[in-house]
Amino acid sequence: MSKAFLELAENEVEIEKIEKEIEKFKILKYKPIYLKRDKLIDSIDSFWKIILSQHSNFVNFIRASDFKYVDCINQIIVDYDEENVGNFSITFKFNEIEGDFPAQTVTKAFKLIKIIPEDNKDSESEDESVEGEKLISESVEIIWPKSYNSINPSLIEDKKSDEGKRNYRKGMKSFFGWFKWTGLKPGKEFPHGDSFATLFSEDLYPYCVKYYTEAQRDLEDEASDSDYDSAEEPLDIDNEESENDEPPKKKSKI
Amino acid sequence: MSKAFLELAENEVEIEKIEKEIEKFKILKYKPIYLKRDKLIDSIDSFWKIILSQHSNFVNFIRASDFKYVDCINQIIVDYDEENVGNFSITFKFNEIEGDFPAQTVTKAFKLIKIIPEDNKDSESEDESVEGEKLISESVEIIWPKSYNSINPSLIEDKKSDEGKRNYRKGMKSFFGWFKWTGLKPGKEFPHGDSFATLFSEDLYPYCVKYYTEAQRDLEDEASDSDYDSAEEPLDIDNEESENDEPPKKKSKI
Repeated sequence: MSKAFLELAENEVEIEKIEKEIEKFKILKYKPIYLKRDKLIDSIDSFWKIILSQHSNFVNFIRASDFKYVDCINQIIVDYDEENVGNFSITFKFNEIEGDFPAQTVTKAFKLIKIIPEDNKDSESEDESVEGEKLISESVEIIWPKSYNSINPSLIEDKKSDEGKRNYRKGMKSFFGWFKWTGLKPGKEFPHGDSFATLFSEDLYPYCVKYYTEAQRDLEDEASDSDYDSAEEPLDIDNEESENDEPPKKKSKI
Repeated sequence: MSKAFLELAENEVEIEKIEKEIEKFKILKYKPIYLKRDKLIDSIDSFWKIILSQHSNFVNFIRASDFKYVDCINQIIVDYDEENVGNFSITFKFNEIEGDFPAQTVTKAFKLIKIIPEDNKDSESEDESVEGEKLISESVEIIWPKSYNSINPSLIEDKKSDEGKRNYRKGMKSFFGWFKWTGLKPGKEFPHGDSFATLFSEDLYPYCVKYYTEAQRDLEDEASDSDYDSAEEPLDIDNEESENDEPPKKKSKI
């Protein structure tokens, strides 16, 4: 019987390899189709603004005042690394707000690393839980809006005063604070920075067209509900599955 | 711009095709490794009994008294149809309980069908919701235990009496009632028969080794907690990921 257990353990290792192989296959299959889609999306006005303002979960990660700048995002591209499955980068292209916020393109990269579970008593936060893998990143340069000067960490002179601390924390919790997130200083960084990253890589980017179609429909419903005339024609660029009101379905794993 | 929308819709159709292709690739990749695993599992005593008695969600689908017969299951095999992605069948091999329940092997097949959303006002239950796809099946023959004679639907003579109705319902809600489930008579069949099927196809079968390892560990913890000597050695046939207490992680979709 112990021979069976050994062979079963080997079998599990093989399954892990196959999982990686399948992920790689998926990434390579999606690459050309996503490339084509990125170009098409680029020609649609306010595509990401419409999605991000209507998405039910996105709003939970950032501050309400961040939406002014989220609305400036005119392109989001997620690049999945087929050689290192689990790693990816997200590129944001921002439009400017004159006198406040410059046009810029920023890429933030994420790595999936194995963590060796050790004694957890010294762990500072629940983020350091006994997971087998975790996502990390590096702080990346982004020019903050002028209106955020008071909470911009690099402009706070006295970080030890009560006001300084408060403003620092506010800044770190903003959308711009997320670009500093590393995943290595739990409790001291943008909260749930890893989940925010995977929200883009596993949800918003793969299902953006479905989300756009749904968001458009909702916006039109709102417009007709409030008796305003909608200037736009109803859009239905999605296939038949979009008839339901549920979030886009994810294919299940076998 | 409307040209972009058209092309985007075409792109979505291509994405759907790719999804099917990836599912097929997955099924074919897993087939030989699952076949090998089935044989190895077959040589391990009480493999499925240990998993099913410890799984946190399995218990919610059936009646407590069913566990006597669930414990008789000595083999479960899920066969995924690579030609019709989404279709699968589940085969159960039961040991006998002398004088009550015969040894038997039963296969139940499931089909994923597209449903065309129509006027939902006449819908009898929430099962007929506006989903794009649903799982259906056919009633399949299984010999019920003798101890279930009073609730065995084919033995209830007067199904219209109050007692008859009550017993009929009890029977349909039992594990054996699930083998009659079709997905076509919502409210009148085994409840959540589709979720119970996918519990096997998407969770229990793919992650059975991880579940077995965890269940073994839990059983040993229980045994040592209650100061009984565990006769068995601790088993750790899983890889390093099993160190955590969370349910086995599913790979995310890109």
